Amino acid sequence: MLYEQIGEEVRNYIDQLTKPRGSLGRLEELAIEIAKMTGERFPSVTPPGVLVFAADHGIAKEGVSAYPQEVTAQMVLNFVRGGAAINVFSKQIGAIFSVVDVGVAIDIHEERVIAEKVAYGTNNFVDEQAMTKEEAERAVQVGHRQANEMIDQGIRCLIVGEMGIGNTTTASALLAAISGRNVAELVGKGTGIHDEAVHHKRSVIERALLLHKPNPSDPLDLLTKIGGFEIAAMAGAMVAAAERRIPILLDGFICTVAALIAQRLNEQVVHYMIAGHESVEPGHRIALQLLNKEPLVRLHMRLGEGSGAAVAFPIVHMATAMLHMATFASANVSTGSDHHE
Amino acid sequence: MLYEQIGEEVRNYIDQLTKPRGSLGRLEELAIEIAKMTGERFPSVTPPGVLVFAADHGIAKEGVSAYPQEVTAQMVLNFVRGGAAINVFSKQIGAIFSVVDVGVAIDIHEERVIAEKVAYGTNNFVDEQAMTKEEAERAVQVGHRQANEMIDQGIRCLIVGEMGIGNTTTASALLAAISGRNVAELVGKGTGIHDEAVHHKRSVIERALLLHKPNPSDPLDLLTKIGGFEIAAMAGAMVAAAERRIPILLDGFICTVAALIAQRLNEQVVHYMIAGHESVEPGHRIALQLLNKEPLVRLHMRLGEGSGAAVAFPIVHMATAMLHMATFASANVSTGSDHHE
Repeated sequence: MLYEQIGEEVRNYIDQLTKPRGSLGRLEELAIEIAKMTGERFPSVTPPGVLVFAADHGIAKEGVSAYPQEVTAQMVLNFVRGGAAINVFSKQIGAIFSVVDVGVAIDIHEERVIAEKVAYGTNNFVDEQAMTKEEAERAVQVGHRQANEMIDQGIRCLIVGEMGIGNTTTASALLAAISGRNVAELVGKGTGIHDEAVHHKRSVIERALLLHKPNPSDPLDLLTKIGGFEIAAMAGAMVAAAERRIPILLDGFICTVAALIAQRLNEQVVHYMIAGHESVEPGHRIALQLLNKEPLVRLHMRLGEGSGAAVAFPIVHMATAMLHMATFASANVSTGSDHHE
Repeated sequence: MLYEQIGEEVRNYIDQLTKPRGSLGRLEELAIEIAKMTGERFPSVTPPGVLVFAADHGIAKEGVSAYPQEVTAQMVLNFVRGGAAINVFSKQIGAIFSVVDVGVAIDIHEERVIAEKVAYGTNNFVDEQAMTKEEAERAVQVGHRQANEMIDQGIRCLIVGEMGIGNTTTASALLAAISGRNVAELVGKGTGIHDEAVHHKRSVIERALLLHKPNPSDPLDLLTKIGGFEIAAMAGAMVAAAERRIPILLDGFICTVAALIAQRLNEQVVHYMIAGHESVEPGHRIALQLLNKEPLVRLHMRLGEGSGAAVAFPIVHMATAMLHMATFASANVSTGSDHHE
């Protein structure tokens, strides 16, 4: 699936550039990975696309978030008006930006929001299934279609973001089911709740897993029983990007759990993923380990929206720019006598 | 010296932005630091300036580098022709870029190189003093003047880079003298030498320190006895930036040792420094610890030239861009019920 031969050609070419061999470290590895993904000897990752999916979660009724549910819709409006963190970061990196309502709990009267609502939020997964299997499939298809539309517009790297009050709880439940790890290892403070609320959040997840017993290798069973719509759409978007050989730059915890769902939809998708950052949410490290990915930056962020990936994007861009350096031969620079490492 | 009050105002303002409190982690701290440095509530760090100082080192005669001495001059030409790593990265970040010959061992016939040669390389510090005290003072002044010229051109953040075959050995000797640490803890493979050469490099440094016994708190004594011209100029440039309240984004090992020299010229300079990256050179971590600075990225780089700082620069830029997000009030977003951390 990957262009291994082109990756090896790029590896050899990098050793001819005017710098000590290996001295650009992770940037060299990134350039090789992207060459393997795209099949290009001088790949480009610009412009990147930032595709944010928003949806609500019935689990928010359990008081698992520091914010009321209406914040999901309010932030969707903030996104189209350019006021959120992901907006200022998208502008910095020259990204094409879209917001998709895939399941917000109220109607959004704003034409700049892409209307793909599958339902008015998920059901509360402590009491019942989050959605029907048909809804899960539709949400995956929304993501797949929207990513393809962005790729048709010319993006060369995909960042998938999310907004959904309560979705760290949903993602934690998904990760607990997928990893088999103890809930206490995975569940942290989300976007800012205190210790008592953390205990409550853990107990909610444990009860839900006992009720539903989702199949950890069945992505539609996981989505149907736990949710959410935006996580399904993110997974579908990643599948589309991989099919089109577009590198996927992963954001934080929710996004990385969506990546685990995408892996269960199509295991080849993992080869197109680059881990952008590691958030302070404790489950994030575990999710990254399951994907066998090392993050580019650790900046103690825990916001979501695609913000961590956007902050990491310039490093990916620098890696591809590096390939445009002069070679020792073209610049008449003497090579070292010794390249042992 | 810092604008502490403005820093506190910016800290409070950040808590009104449409994101959970503290959720942008290190970016929030960076924005506050830069506000304190500049005295601006909405500071800008663009355009950045990249100022590369090149000079040769008599110690190169000891075979401490994988590259022959002529590479210093060859790379200076590569810099002005746009072929080096720092060129492609400077272009990415929109930097104003200059290269200064402050002590290259041969004449450079290229008008785009700023000619400020203090001498044709340092003396071999194993046998004699690297330079005279007057030369050390002149090299510091070159850096101070060149940084001021770049600041006059409008740069809002300074990256200081270097090129000088043998200069990891010089920087290691300076750090050994300053830190009092065992040479074996500080000295690694530089830009790519094998184990036997590492032992030789350590022994060269140990002999030099026994011969010269430099005063670890006297910057001119350190520079005179060990070198080098580019390290002196980098330190002078940092002093100028701090005097003009321009943030300094530190590069790798050589640059961070120059920062320790700058600190000894004027201890206030440290308040204007941000650590860009941590290189794989073992002494770099120790030098950063002495400055009490935490790097923004760790990407296994070890190139110099300012390249690591340039790769980290977009993170600093994002931190200042963050301040242009909407507030909860302006965007009509509900605040959380609970912001405990």
